[in-house]
This record gives sequence, C-alpha cells and structure tokens, in this order.
Amino acid sequence: MNSEPCFDIAHLGHVEMLTNKPQESLDFFVNVLGLTESGREGDSVYLRAFDDYEFHSLKLTASNTTGVAHIGYRASSEQGLARRVAAIEKMGCGIGWTGGDLGHGKSYRFHDPDNHIFEIYFDTKKYQAPQAEKPALKNQAQRYHGRGVGVRRIDHLNLLAQDVAKIREFMPAALGSRVTEEIQLNDGTFGGCWFTVNNKSYDIAYTRDHTKARGRFHHVTYAVDQREHVLRAADIFLENGVFIETGPHKHAIQQTFFLYVYEPAGNRVEVANAGARLIIDPDWKTVTWTETERKKGQAWGLKTIESFHTHGTPPAE
Amino acid sequence: MNSEPCFDIAHLGHVEMLTNKPQESLDFFVNVLGLTESGREGDSVYLRAFDDYEFHSLKLTASNTTGVAHIGYRASSEQGLARRVAAIEKMGCGIGWTGGDLGHGKSYRFHDPDNHIFEIYFDTKKYQAPQAEKPALKNQAQRYHGRGVGVRRIDHLNLLAQDVAKIREFMPAALGSRVTEEIQLNDGTFGGCWFTVNNKSYDIAYTRDHTKARGRFHHVTYAVDQREHVLRAADIFLENGVFIETGPHKHAIQQTFFLYVYEPAGNRVEVANAGARLIIDPDWKTVTWTETERKKGQAWGLKTIESFHTHGTPPAE
Amino acid sequence: MNSEPCFDIAHLGHVEMLTNKPQESLDFFVNVLGLTESGREGDSVYLRAFDDYEFHSLKLTASNTTGVAHIGYRASSEQGLARRVAAIEKMGCGIGWTGGDLGHGKSYRFHDPDNHIFEIYFDTKKYQAPQAEKPALKNQAQRYHGRGVGVRRIDHLNLLAQDVAKIREFMPAALGSRVTEEIQLNDGTFGGCWFTVNNKSYDIAYTRDHTKARGRFHHVTYAVDQREHVLRAADIFLENGVFIETGPHKHAIQQTFFLYVYEPAGNRVEVANAGARLIIDPDWKTVTWTETERKKGQAWGLKTIESFHTHGTPPAE
Amino acid sequence: MNSEPCFDIAHLGHVEMLTNKPQESLDFFVNVLGLTESGREGDSVYLRAFDDYEFHSLKLTASNTTGVAHIGYRASSEQGLARRVAAIEKMGCGIGWTGGDLGHGKSYRFHDPDNHIFEIYFDTKKYQAPQAEKPALKNQAQRYHGRGVGVRRIDHLNLLAQDVAKIREFMPAALGSRVTEEIQLNDGTFGGCWFTVNNKSYDIAYTRDHTKARGRFHHVTYAVDQREHVLRAADIFLENGVFIETGPHKHAIQQTFFLYVYEPAGNRVEVANAGARLIIDPDWKTVTWTETERKKGQAWGLKTIESFHTHGTPPAE
Repeated sequence: MNSEPCFDIAHLGHVEMLTNKPQESLDFFVNVLGLTESGREGDSVYLRAFDDYEFHSLKLTASNTTGVAHIGYRASSEQGLARRVAAIEKMGCGIGWTGGDLGHGKSYRFHDPDNHIFEIYFDTKKYQAPQAEKPALKNQAQRYHGRGVGVRRIDHLNLLAQDVAKIREFMPAALGSRVTEEIQLNDGTFGGCWFTVNNKSYDIAYTRDHTKARGRFHHVTYAVDQREHVLRAADIFLENGVFIETGPHKHAIQQTFFLYVYEPAGNRVEVANAGARLIIDPDWKTVTWTETERKKGQAWGLKTIESFHTHGTPPAE
Repeated sequence: MNSEPCFDIAHLGHVEMLTNKPQESLDFFVNVLGLTESGREGDSVYLRAFDDYEFHSLKLTASNTTGVAHIGYRASSEQGLARRVAAIEKMGCGIGWTGGDLGHGKSYRFHDPDNHIFEIYFDTKKYQAPQAEKPALKNQAQRYHGRGVGVRRIDHLNLLAQDVAKIREFMPAALGSRVTEEIQLNDGTFGGCWFTVNNKSYDIAYTRDHTKARGRFHHVTYAVDQREHVLRAADIFLENGVFIETGPHKHAIQQTFFLYVYEPAGNRVEVANAGARLIIDPDWKTVTWTETERKKGQAWGLKTIESFHTHGTPPAE
Repeated sequence: MNSEPCFDIAHLGHVEMLTNKPQESLDFFVNVLGLTESGREGDSVYLRAFDDYEFHSLKLTASNTTGVAHIGYRASSEQGLARRVAAIEKMGCGIGWTGGDLGHGKSYRFHDPDNHIFEIYFDTKKYQAPQAEKPALKNQAQRYHGRGVGVRRIDHLNLLAQDVAKIREFMPAALGSRVTEEIQLNDGTFGGCWFTVNNKSYDIAYTRDHTKARGRFHHVTYAVDQREHVLRAADIFLENGVFIETGPHKHAIQQTFFLYVYEPAGNRVEVANAGARLIIDPDWKTVTWTETERKKGQAWGLKTIESFHTHGTPPAE
Repeated sequence: MNSEPCFDIAHLGHVEMLTNKPQESLDFFVNVLGLTESGREGDSVYLRAFDDYEFHSLKLTASNTTGVAHIGYRASSEQGLARRVAAIEKMGCGIGWTGGDLGHGKSYRFHDPDNHIFEIYFDTKKYQAPQAEKPALKNQAQRYHGRGVGVRRIDHLNLLAQDVAKIREFMPAALGSRVTEEIQLNDGTFGGCWFTVNNKSYDIAYTRDHTKARGRFHHVTYAVDQREHVLRAADIFLENGVFIETGPHKHAIQQTFFLYVYEPAGNRVEVANAGARLIIDPDWKTVTWTETERKKGQAWGLKTIESFHTHGTPPAE
C-alpha cells in the first residue's frame, strides 16, 4: 500500500439488489432480517439497518432478474471524491455522473473489469429518525426493534469475477482499497481477494466465478453484534422456512462467523458478527492462503459446499 | 473535522503502567487477564494480547508508585509522523526524541495539558510468534490460549484531567483525533471527551478529575470478542479474588459493554467487548450528552458508583 | 428430605396475574416479552411461551388491583394429586376443588400461611399449535417467533411473606418441595427460601416482606436460553420504555443471571437464563447463606437495591 | 411411562473410559477440556468437572484398547437401589455387587443387551474441595478455573448397539428410564433412542452400530453453560490441534448445540450447552423421527457426516 494512507473513500454505503419476487423479498428483508423501510421510489424500496447512519444501505429493486444493479461507496470528502473520479477516468472505466436518488446526491458511476457497476458519492442524506423510530440512546441512528434477526448494519458484499487477478489490481487503483487477504492457487491464479478502504478487515470480496459468467453477485452481508445472534438468526431462518445454505461456522479467511441463506428471489444473504478484528496496522501485509491451506475447509473443519462456488445471481446461462 | 481526512496517526499502540506490586500485577495480567509476556528489560515486562500485532501493548514497570508512565500511538507513515512532530513542536508541548525500546524504534515524546506523557512512533517491532505461540490461523498474530479471561487486544484507555476543555482542543491538534462523544455540564464545562484517530469509536477518553489532581490514570481497556466473554470474565475475576468495582453493564456513552476491576496495585482495568460500533461516517457530528442525560445512569439504569469519579492512580494526595 | 423421593408434583404450571392496566400489560407480555395469546375468557387472557407444553403459563386478569391471584402446579399423576390433596386437607389449609378453566381440568385450591392461593391439578390441556404456530422442529410445542425478548418458558416465581420460616415448613409438607437454598439472618429468622419439586434448582422463592404486608407478589420469571439473550432483553426493554429495576447481573444465591423490570401495572417480571444448574443430587443439602454473606451483594458485587426489598404487588397499604 | 413416576435412579454419575494413550488423554481432559484430577488408583485417574457434585464423573483408565469400561448411575435412595437390583436380577442380566472404588461405595453391576457394563449405587463420595479448589460461591462444588474449555458437568453419553429396539425395552425396565425421543426407520427398526431418568431431556442415547459390532462407545458429553462457550471450545480445540469431527451445529433431535472431537486415543467427546430444554411433563409422549425427517440433516441443514455412523471405540474389527 501507499506509505501515506490518505483515505479518499470512507466506506461501503449501499447495494442495489434486483429481485423478481419483490413482495417476498421485501417481506424477508423487513420481517425476517429486520431492516426498516426508509423510502420508496419507482420500482425501488430503500431499506436500512438500525445502526446504518445513512438513509439506506439496501435498495431493493423489482426487476425481471436478480443479482446486483450497483454498489455505492461514500467518499471521505468532496476533494477525495474528485481525486477518485480523476483516477477512474484515467483508468478508462468511468461511466459518468448521476443526479443521485432518495438516499444521496450526485454520484459518479464506473464499472469494474468484470462489469459490475459502482458509484461513489460524498453528498449523502443522513437518516433522520421519525418519532416512531427514535432510539433510546442518542448515539444510535435508529431504534433497535429486535424484529426478526435485527441486524445492526451493512457489513460487506461479495462479487463473483471471471478474473480475480484483474480485480486485485483494479480496486486499489480505483478506490484506494487495500488487499487484506487473498487466495492464490497452485497455478498462480487468484481464487479470491478481500479488500478494505478503512479499518474494517474487508468491505468487499471477489471470488472466482466457476461458471465463467461475468457481473454476478455472490452475497451481501449484514452484521449482528454477537456470535450468539448469528445462532439465533439460524433459529429464526429455520422457523421462517428460509433456505440455509451453510453455517453457522467460522471462516478461516478473515475469521468471519458466518451464516448464508437465500432470500426468496435467490440472492444470497449472509449474517455475520460485527468483526472483532480490525486492520489498524498501516503497513498490514496481505495474508495469502494457498490451495493446500484452503483444502482444510473452514476454521473448524467444515468443508465448503459446492453451491458456494457455483450459485450466484443472476443464474449463469 | 477537517474535510479531507488524512490520518497521520494510525492507532493507539501501548500503555506503560507503573506498579508497586510488580509480581502480583504480573500474575494478574498473565494468569487472570490472559496476556503473554513478550520480553523483559530493566524493571519492565512487555505484555501483549493474542491479536495485538505489535510486540507489546502493555509495558508493566516496577515502581514506587502506580498510574501510567506514558502512552504510545503509532503513526501511519514516516511522513505522517514528521507532520505530527512539527505540529506538536509548534504547540510548545514537545519533549523530544527517544531511541525506542524493546517494542519499537525511535519515538517522539510530548505531554498533554494535564501532564500525561505521550509518544508517537512509526518504526515498530511486529510480533514474531515463537513456535509455542504459533496460531492455528495465519491471519492472527499469536495463538489463542484461552488462559483466564483471554483478552483479544488493547482497546482504549481513559485518563483523568483537571480541565477536559483543554484536552478537547489539544488532541485534535496534536494527534488529529476526532471528538466522537462528550459530556457538557450545565455550567458549560466538559465532564468528559472521547477521541479517536481511526474508525474505532474511541481509543482514548478523558474525564474530569474530581480531586483536582493532574496526570492521573483512570483505566486501560482490553477487548474480548463477545459480551458473553465479559460475563465469563466476571466469573473468573470472582474466583480469583480480583476486586470488581462495577459492571458488567452497558454504558450509554459509546454503548460499551463494560466490567471494571482493580489490578493488585490498584490500577483500574476494564474488560469490554470489541466494538460492534464503528465511526465510518467521515463527517460524524460529536454526540453531546447533557448533565440531565447523564443523571439517568448507564444504558440500562445502573447508577455510576462514586469511586468511578474519584479513584485514579496514583492516588491523589 | 425424604430418603425415597417420589415426586407427586411435577412442576410449576402457571401464574394468574392481576392488572389494573389490562391493555398495556397485554401489550407488554405479547409484544415486548414475546408471549403468545392462546385464549380468552371473561376478564382473562391466557398467555404462553413457545416452549411451555401446556395451554398457558400466564393468566392475565383485568382487575382493580395488581399482584397474583393464584399459582398452579401440575401433579405427576392422579394418584400423586390425591396424595397431595389428602396431605393438604390434613394440614387444614385446603379451600376445595374447582372445575378448571381454559387451560386445565379440575384443580384443588389451598392457601399458604401468608394467604397466597395455590392450586394443584393433573388433567391439563396440552398446547395444540394452530397452523400459524407450528414449529419447524417437532420436539417443540410452538414456533419460535423471535418477537421482542422471545422468552422460552415460565421458570419460577417469587412471593413475599411475613414469616418465611412458616413457609419453609409448609412447602415441603404441602407440595413435597425441597429447600435448595435459604438465607438465615443473625437473629435466626429466615430472609428467604428457595424451593423445588423437581430437578430445577428452584421453581418458587419466598422472601421476607419488609412492609409486613401479607399475600404479596414479588415477581414471575421467564427463561431465555442464553445470558446474551438477557442482555438483548435489556436493550429491548430500554427501547420500549420499560422500567428496568436492576440487572442484568448474577445472583450469588442460585447463580441466576437476572434482569428485573416492571410491567405497566407495576408487577415485577424477571428475565433469566434457563439454568445451567440442576439439582440432581437426591440428598442435596440446603445451602444456607448468612447475613454477612448476603451483605457482599450479588455474585459480582452489585448491591441489592432498596426497592427489591420493598416493592411488591399489590402495593402494601 | 408409568402413571406414577417414582424415580429410583437419580442421575448418570460417571463413565469409565479406556485409553491406550493415557498421558495424552489425561492432558486433553485436564488442560484442554478443563477437568480436574480428584484422585488416582492403579491404572485409573479420577476426573471431574467443576459443577459435578460427586468425587468424579470420568474414570480414565490406561488400557491396551479404547472405549468405555462401565457406566455408573446413582440411585435416589437405598430403597430405590434395592428395587432396581431386584428388577435387574429378575431380568437375568445382573453381574453382581462390587465393593466400590475411590468415588463411591458398593455398586451393583449388570450388562445391557449389547454387552455394555453398567453399575448402580447410592453410597457416594461427595467432592470436598481442597483449599486451592474452594469456589467463591458456596452453592458450587468446586472453583471455576476457566482453564481450556472449562466444562461445567457431565451431561450424557451415547453408546452404539446392534439392536436399538432391544435397548428401547431394556432401559425403562432396568433403570426406569423414559424414552424422550427416537428414530424409527421406514422398515420399522430403530435408528436411535434417547433416554432419561430425571428432568434432563436425556442422559443416555443409543444409536445403531452400522458396523454390526457390539459393546461400542460413541461419545461422552460435557456441558458448558452457553452456546457461545461451545464456539469458544471450537477455537480452543483448533489451537490445540484436537481433531474436530463435526459442529458446532444444532441437532434437530433434542435440539442439542453440539461439537464433536476425538480425544487423543480416539474416543469421541462432545461439548454441548447445558440444556435449556427440560422434560417436566410427567406424561411426555415420545417424539418419533422418521427416516424422511432425518434426511433433512441437522436443525440448520448440516448433513450428518459419514464417520458419525461408523466411528466408535474400540474400533470394530
């Protein structure tokens, strides 16, 4: 990394997810996962977790397909935003400015080498809790309802890519991200990369799309406070007939305590515990996992299930 | 805060604590709290938690008194360090360069308005685990022993000050810290201020010394992963005859789930759960708690006990 | 205890609680504590926790006062019931048979020396979950909703008594209870007694009424699975404006991890974690706590707050 | 079950386990699982968890093989013991009286239809904590060290049997056990049965030995208080190089939150959380799981791994 960290990008802000079962998906996110609706516009419902400080962290958009429409990162300042836009334009992957939406002002859009769409913005709409959503403690954006899983905040997302090596070059250049961990296979190619723009150990991960498709989505993760809350989430998913793909268990990589389910339209959603681990070391050296190490399975020995390598949204043709 | 965050200081690195009962204190930190000794030199033992990436986070020094000898912060780069030194020298509170110690290279020392001694450094000694301390997962600095409380990493510290308002000006100027939360009393004075140099919600707090003494220490905090581990810590302290001052309970301020004990020499030590809360908002607005709000007690109604306002180390004369 | 345990009484079944704020109380029990309504009759609403196997464990009855109307224990068999009735009649404190209610068949009522009303019954109505309440796992009576605190089952209750020594003689004689723990003060009187009819460490406790009133109620307790769920309950009570009297903390007596709140009509309700401790020893020796030991406060040092000794329902005149 | 429960047998007392790696096994049980040695005699070391009230719950005996040597249950009284001995003698599976060992007085031995050896006894040696093992709270047998996993008490064991149907008849007749849950396959045979003599939901389980061997041992289980402690146990096993077979996860049957490992000699050991579930219903109806239901895997969908059906000790020839 740069020896003088100057974080132009502050954090992952939101994900726009597509669903071809909008009512069922909305019911899942509100009543099972515990998000709150903060607005609607066109085919989109804006959703938020109680400790997200911005207007929304999930924009759920009715569509004839699934997957992710775009990913938003908030810049640290107008100057930081301008620097990033200049860098991205120079890289030749810029798309251009948008006028913003219900959740934020103008944003600059671009695409990654795998054709996922990103936007960066600084001017945001901070959540102003209406009376019924006022929290008991003033240092929290919104009331904790304890409805369903009751997730705290958006944590990270995972995208699939044909060529992870290209992404590994791209994200530091475009967003100033650091590569905190990675999987390098015996043939020298990369099976996955984990990136962060701040002190979280990662805010986005890319893993290889075994189907060779492009632009696909693997999962979005919401954080709860405690590992016990992940276990409780499993009980709630079970009672609500939500498909549990794998977990709860602990990843060796990043040590995330995970639980993966599919929301009704098939998009994968993870509940994980808000990381005890932070990357505060300014000269953190990327941790590289070998193919042999990965074959040991997850931290406590669980083997990675096949669908984890193949299921993405939209389905590959 | 500055509209262009450029974090010169990366994080709190270590605390040097004085003890007039060195053997008892060492036994507490190693066998009850669960730290590991990483080195010794002169009257000092260097101690670390399993997920601290540097050589040490606590330097325990035998003395005829108690309290804190100095606090170390690591800079993000040599350039960042140089910028901070220049700023501090200009402020007129610089002390000068040291040659470093077992845990890091040269450092620049200065004092705060209450006469606590700080140092900043970039050149550090990262922990190289000897064979017996090798972790099972390579993204972790050291093996998790599960001995005693088994804390994860240093989290923050709290100092007492005669005049918190002065500190509130000082820390942003000296370290580039942000004030994330504060207590402002009815008379306009400040009862306490919480500061951070990164995405943690705080790494140092200052609260008013009701005895009017200067340079005193309130507590150092080590983080565990889960609130349940704080409860388990209480059971372990109970069985080991450690004095529990207050907790476990949840602070309204910063929402920390806390437990305070005194180590054998009387220095206060906190075990808290590694924060679910992060300050990722680049234009976070300081949360100001009023005197009336503080009178409600802690988050779940526990009244703050008297000794919390008066007990500091060394004892005030 | 008898050297040949033959448990005539199986377990605590239900509590009938009086409220002079029936709507507010019902809202508390259903939406905040997470009970489910299983029926209504007259001024009463029948409520249950998801793992209670009988129709109800709380009968909430609108009244012009508060406190407890009666306490029900289920017998182990018709023969056991008959043996208990014979014993109680001989003791001279019998009231007579009732025809049962929505939750169970005929029951025999009696009063304790402090004038609390009890009933014992064998013929019960086991909960038959309607479609919407069917659990995912067939070894559980009802679906786990995760609504509010989401308590698992009724655990125990606590009554106040003028003369605890009389109760200490009465309960073993009437119900065959064992005294598992007790407080004996310096003057030889008893400050409290904890009783069980089965392997739970207690199902009812009596403590001295410092106001000298008779027939008063101290609290009813619902169990959650984990200590973390008690902490989460505190967060939920805080957000819902429920008065938290004391806790979460751990009692020295019985080691219960507790949290006490007042439901809207003023009746005290406890949330505790389902006991890790069981009394399986058939010749368990009563643990007697002295006045000196009690002065140490709770397990981790919290001092017992004054209202815990004085607040009961209905209020003493 | 009998309509008049009169529990002659109080609880599972201890298991004698054989090991052909006595030093390694002992190190595992003491330093990793967290048991305490309470005595030694001949080739056996007596071990106990901190909340076991008897002298020991595990007798670890050096041998040239592995598996279980005998299982001990404590009777509720001398009369209850006599009744059980009479019943067992009549059943024709009695072996005879022993003079007891370090942990208890005379016991009566018998074998089950699969040739596992049991003993029942009433006269026991309650643990008298030496000074260094005195607990802080007097209602607990021994100090909680927090060493390694730090298990609370023996919970249950699981044996393999050629013919589970025979055991299903045998245990109620011999010990007065109730069958709380069972697996009945499509062909009418039984895949497993769970039994209890008290309010625990089970203290012993038998499952089909797919290798057709007889007298084999599946696992012994020690309970911790919280599900989080099971997760923490997984971290500790990982760091200590203990083989984790499967888990942590939640069984559908009995809803146990489980984690299975092999101690160094190959005997399977489970850590589970002390049951929130109790069987207090005196006329509990056995829950029968079908082959179809079992194919769904564990509660949250984990597939049962093959070794769980085949690995027993001693290895089948």
